Amino acid sequence: MTNQAEPIRVGVLGARGRMGLEVCKAVDGAGDMELVAMLDQGDELFKASDAGAQVFVDFTTPDAVMDNLHWAIDQGISMVVGTTGFTDQRLAQVGEWLAAKPGAGVLVAPNFGLGAVLMMQFAARAARYFDSVEIIEQHHPRKLDAPSGTSTHTARLIAQARAEAGLGAMPDATKDEVDGARGADIEGVRIHSVRAAGLVAHQEVLFGSLGETLTIRHDSLDRVSFMPGVLLGVRKILARPGLTVGLDSFLD
Amino acid sequence: MTNQAEPIRVGVLGARGRMGLEVCKAVDGAGDMELVAMLDQGDELFKASDAGAQVFVDFTTPDAVMDNLHWAIDQGISMVVGTTGFTDQRLAQVGEWLAAKPGAGVLVAPNFGLGAVLMMQFAARAARYFDSVEIIEQHHPRKLDAPSGTSTHTARLIAQARAEAGLGAMPDATKDEVDGARGADIEGVRIHSVRAAGLVAHQEVLFGSLGETLTIRHDSLDRVSFMPGVLLGVRKILARPGLTVGLDSFLD
Amino acid sequence: MTNQAEPIRVGVLGARGRMGLEVCKAVDGAGDMELVAMLDQGDELFKASDAGAQVFVDFTTPDAVMDNLHWAIDQGISMVVGTTGFTDQRLAQVGEWLAAKPGAGVLVAPNFGLGAVLMMQFAARAARYFDSVEIIEQHHPRKLDAPSGTSTHTARLIAQARAEAGLGAMPDATKDEVDGARGADIEGVRIHSVRAAGLVAHQEVLFGSLGETLTIRHDSLDRVSFMPGVLLGVRKILARPGLTVGLDSFLD
Amino acid sequence: MTNQAEPIRVGVLGARGRMGLEVCKAVDGAGDMELVAMLDQGDELFKASDAGAQVFVDFTTPDAVMDNLHWAIDQGISMVVGTTGFTDQRLAQVGEWLAAKPGAGVLVAPNFGLGAVLMMQFAARAARYFDSVEIIEQHHPRKLDAPSGTSTHTARLIAQARAEAGLGAMPDATKDEVDGARGADIEGVRIHSVRAAGLVAHQEVLFGSLGETLTIRHDSLDRVSFMPGVLLGVRKILARPGLTVGLDSFLD
Repeated sequence: MTNQAEPIRVGVLGARGRMGLEVCKAVDGAGDMELVAMLDQGDELFKASDAGAQVFVDFTTPDAVMDNLHWAIDQGISMVVGTTGFTDQRLAQVGEWLAAKPGAGVLVAPNFGLGAVLMMQFAARAARYFDSVEIIEQHHPRKLDAPSGTSTHTARLIAQARAEAGLGAMPDATKDEVDGARGADIEGVRIHSVRAAGLVAHQEVLFGSLGETLTIRHDSLDRVSFMPGVLLGVRKILARPGLTVGLDSFLD
Repeated sequence: MTNQAEPIRVGVLGARGRMGLEVCKAVDGAGDMELVAMLDQGDELFKASDAGAQVFVDFTTPDAVMDNLHWAIDQGISMVVGTTGFTDQRLAQVGEWLAAKPGAGVLVAPNFGLGAVLMMQFAARAARYFDSVEIIEQHHPRKLDAPSGTSTHTARLIAQARAEAGLGAMPDATKDEVDGARGADIEGVRIHSVRAAGLVAHQEVLFGSLGETLTIRHDSLDRVSFMPGVLLGVRKILARPGLTVGLDSFLD
Repeated sequence: MTNQAEPIRVGVLGARGRMGLEVCKAVDGAGDMELVAMLDQGDELFKASDAGAQVFVDFTTPDAVMDNLHWAIDQGISMVVGTTGFTDQRLAQVGEWLAAKPGAGVLVAPNFGLGAVLMMQFAARAARYFDSVEIIEQHHPRKLDAPSGTSTHTARLIAQARAEAGLGAMPDATKDEVDGARGADIEGVRIHSVRAAGLVAHQEVLFGSLGETLTIRHDSLDRVSFMPGVLLGVRKILARPGLTVGLDSFLD
Repeated sequence: MTNQAEPIRVGVLGARGRMGLEVCKAVDGAGDMELVAMLDQGDELFKASDAGAQVFVDFTTPDAVMDNLHWAIDQGISMVVGTTGFTDQRLAQVGEWLAAKPGAGVLVAPNFGLGAVLMMQFAARAARYFDSVEIIEQHHPRKLDAPSGTSTHTARLIAQARAEAGLGAMPDATKDEVDGARGADIEGVRIHSVRAAGLVAHQEVLFGSLGETLTIRHDSLDRVSFMPGVLLGVRKILARPGLTVGLDSFLD
């Protein structure tokens, strides 16, 4: 994983936020990167370009991120973006800006957890080979939504793979159901949302055919787990001009 | 577990059924028992008493079991009963018959799986010590009811233990729920019913408090797993006159 | 999954063995196949070619399989082989025979469980992204070898992927070890072999990096679980002349 | 759980250590307790008695704890002790001191995690009912010993319960073993120690008999999980004069 060449010069935007602080530590600790700027609200972006930043990592806010992107792309600086709030319209706007600067690359990723990204890839790949599949996601009880965004996204990937493979509905003889027992139905895939003290963020995808099951489980305990994904983004974005959505295509 | 004394003489009623066959094999293989009679529909019960049976094991049908019980108790033969369909009224009737025959004992058990019985005992015992608890039960897709009887029973035991300990509602901030995501609510305990090909019969009880979780899981793959519970019943019933409901109190 | 075209005509060798019987049932139940011959020890192979078999499925013995292969390839019949005992030398011999018959295809697969094959693929793919990985395999107590063949193979795939990615040794501060606690070391990957009554065949591959873990688990309960893999082999072998080792490359 | 009566007045010894800080927060947050003294190295114990402490919680060091115990018992103050290093000799000494002060109680507990304590109780109780049992413990890779103290203790409890029930050796046909695959042998119970980044502290006890398994699993993510056990100790020690070893007997 070491790089004999010059280190990549990285600027962090949103450097005083919880995620930003972790990114600064991670970049600082990476042998093949140099942390040249740590900016937050009120700081001028040109300080980072003056410091020679080649890549910006942005964990700011939906209000600030578009201006940051516009300015960075204009300067030919590539960006790895973990800030939320990207609609199709916003992504189209970023694509336009990039079209005018063929050298710059932007990665917008909703989830930098390599484990979560791999879980989703594997689930999509396994889907066509099994009769049944259900998702059990488990989170701390302060979570507001059920099911989780990641589980809903996983269910959609699975439903699409099953449709492409020509698989029909899953076997299910349930006749007598207490309301809610069989979970939420997301495009034909059942999701069960467990909420309990002591849990952090966990997801299990259970595939089954006659005589066997295959289970893919991801346990995320700490936001530090997103750092390998952020660093991977920084390492690859310089060779990936244009807009990339999702860390997915950076794996392999 | 061996018995230096005379072997217990056992008669099996419903001996040609799927469970009955397993019981015959199990009794036959137990060093401290002798299989003296295998009866099924059309056979006369007195053959078993003539053969000196001390204990009957009954896996027949709801239609046949009450006549079998009446006759056996009258003969002073004890019974271990796995046949279903016992209402409170039926249990009261059995109690009456037993009152007239102080020597005889009857065990009526809805579940002879020691693992399942222990899981329920442990769940009831742990319940008072944790903020949260949810149940995930997983079965083959031919199952008609959701949640399973065992999980519903477990939820009731947990709810009762929580109430006795003065625990209130569990923490749950869910605001935005896709219908069914949070499972079925049985007396305040959430149950999630997974149905997939490749599964047999599984149940997980997940307890959680800040910083830790405790999970009790039972996996049942084959009806042969009920045999140790049946044999335990046979071994203990001779020293337990009167009516016992549930294998529970025979443990320890 | 149905095939509008002519059904594939399949002959089963070793048809009276445990696996062979399951294959016969599976082929018979597949809408796109026709079971044209069921042969076992003492039967003449030409009966199957007379019946128009296009593909042979071979679950015989190491003693018989090479003769079967020689004859089938000579007839231009393709083969799906689950029989064990294939050395590099044997594979080379099969390759030679195939070179003379460009139309025929042979698949030799040590494991037809799609779940197991996917588990190994996913494990190999995830290996480069995590600091740590260990394998826990769990089997019935009648198993003679520890660790299992599948877990050893998985460990080798992981070790190779880690080496290619330039990963060094895994973090492990163990200083004070009771003999055996840390498992078997297969090319730097630790394997733990659990043996207990009630288990069938299970394997868990646990990946971890700071703050997250990814677990891939396969549970195999019945040899019927190999049938989808056998049928997949039959469906694809006609379009795959030459020698293929492992079901792996038939997925996707 | 609230107490209508006077709050229990608690002094914390070792109040500036990692565990001590958590205890102070927990006592402070408990409705039925009052935190009257926080002492650490260099502070005089009489400050705590002057403040009216009825119970001391001690998370200091093996060097300091015996003096603390001597002084507190002499004052008639009860103690809940999580400090390590208690030999049989030390426990005997504490017993002697207590004999002279019939009103005071001391609880010495190696583990205040209710989940861990329950796991061990349940494991000891289930042990007599299953043919096989193995332990898998999983920890972060900075851990120095393998197997963990908790798993070794669990194995001993299980071995004792099996011996009392007259169970012999577990079934295990392993003939061909790569060194270490079958784990460490602690009094006939196999323990497998997994070490991987991303793990914290986890233990699984797997019981099996023909056709079924029962699994008891504890996941500990944070030392905050020990606080309910500490508070339970404080609540009960005033009614438990004399020496108690292990939180165990305070449950129920």
